[in-house]
Order: sequence, then structure tokens, then C-alpha cells
Amino acid sequence: MPPYYAVIFTSVRTEGDNGYAEAAARMLASASQQTGFLGFETARQELGISVSYWASLEAIKAWKENAEHIETQKKAKEWYGSFRVRVCRVEREYGF
Amino acid sequence: MPPYYAVIFTSVRTEGDNGYAEAAARMLASASQQTGFLGFETARQELGISVSYWASLEAIKAWKENAEHIETQKKAKEWYGSFRVRVCRVEREYGF
Repeated sequence: MPPYYAVIFTSVRTEGDNGYAEAAARMLASASQQTGFLGFETARQELGISVSYWASLEAIKAWKENAEHIETQKKAKEWYGSFRVRVCRVEREYGF
Repeated sequence: MPPYYAVIFTSVRTEGDNGYAEAAARMLASASQQTGFLGFETARQELGISVSYWASLEAIKAWKENAEHIETQKKAKEWYGSFRVRVCRVEREYGF
């Protein structure tokens, strides 16, 4: 339950896979092992929106500084024409 | 620039359109006219993720209490098998 954190990652892909699918699966598996990881949701049409959920800003920072994650991010310009990361504090939620 | 607010709306649709596409377009047009509306992004595969961006919690509250919006929400159970709304404060952002 709130408060917790969400990282909204929006992106437009480049043409071709360029190793993206494998790397994305590997990064999700690795993130899922991080302390404070709460969940992940993703959808893509022309725009892709992925949201990862975290228990704290410290957990997000630790994942941002993860060595394999940093290494993988070096390919960002091969995979994305553009992307944006928004780090958010979830204030409240509801649904059914 | 942060701080501003994001509403993350995740959903799974029911079968059939049931007037959804028309209503979704109408609601986006109406939301876009609201004071404090900053933008909207959406993608759907099996899961749909839509994010609307707002200048303040007051702007989100005003949209939540908009009469046409409330009327439209009465059809939620025809359109969605499940949904979740998360109101978030955007703390920081970056990208290219």
C-alpha cells in the first residue's frame, strides 16, 4: 500500500531487435531479485510504457547503480529513439 | 519539470467495444481542457497502461469530480475486467 514508488519508463524503439528482447528479459529477472522490488507492468504500441514498483527511493537507487544494469544501459541508443524516466512517489491507489 | 503529478491507470479490458473507444476519446478531449492538464500517454497489449500528467493534486481532484467524467465512469464494469488507479507525485525525470 502507498506510500511506495513507481518508475515510469516511456520509450520509442529503434528498428530491429538488436539484442533488446534478451536484455529486457534479463534486466527484469535481475530487477526482480533486488531488495525492495515490488512489481513490473509493461505495454507497447508505438509508444512503450513500463512501470516498475519499488518500496523506497533507496531500492531504486541501488538498481540504478547495479553494475549489470549500468553495462546494459550502454546500449540504450541502439534500442531507443527516445526515452524518459520518471521517478514517482505513489500517494494513493484504488481499483477493482 | 518536477514536482508535478502522474495518474497511472492500468487495466484489462472486457470483450467487445461497448462504446469504449468513443468514450475514451471523449474523456481525453475533456481532460485536455482541464486546468492543470499536462499530457497523456497510453499503450495496450493484454494489459493497458495509460498515464495522465497534472500540475497539482487539485487539478486531479477537479477532473475526478467532473460531472461528465463521473457519468462515464458508471460504465467501468462494462469496459474493464479489472483496473487500478495510482496517483503519484513525480519526483524527478530524465531521458533523451
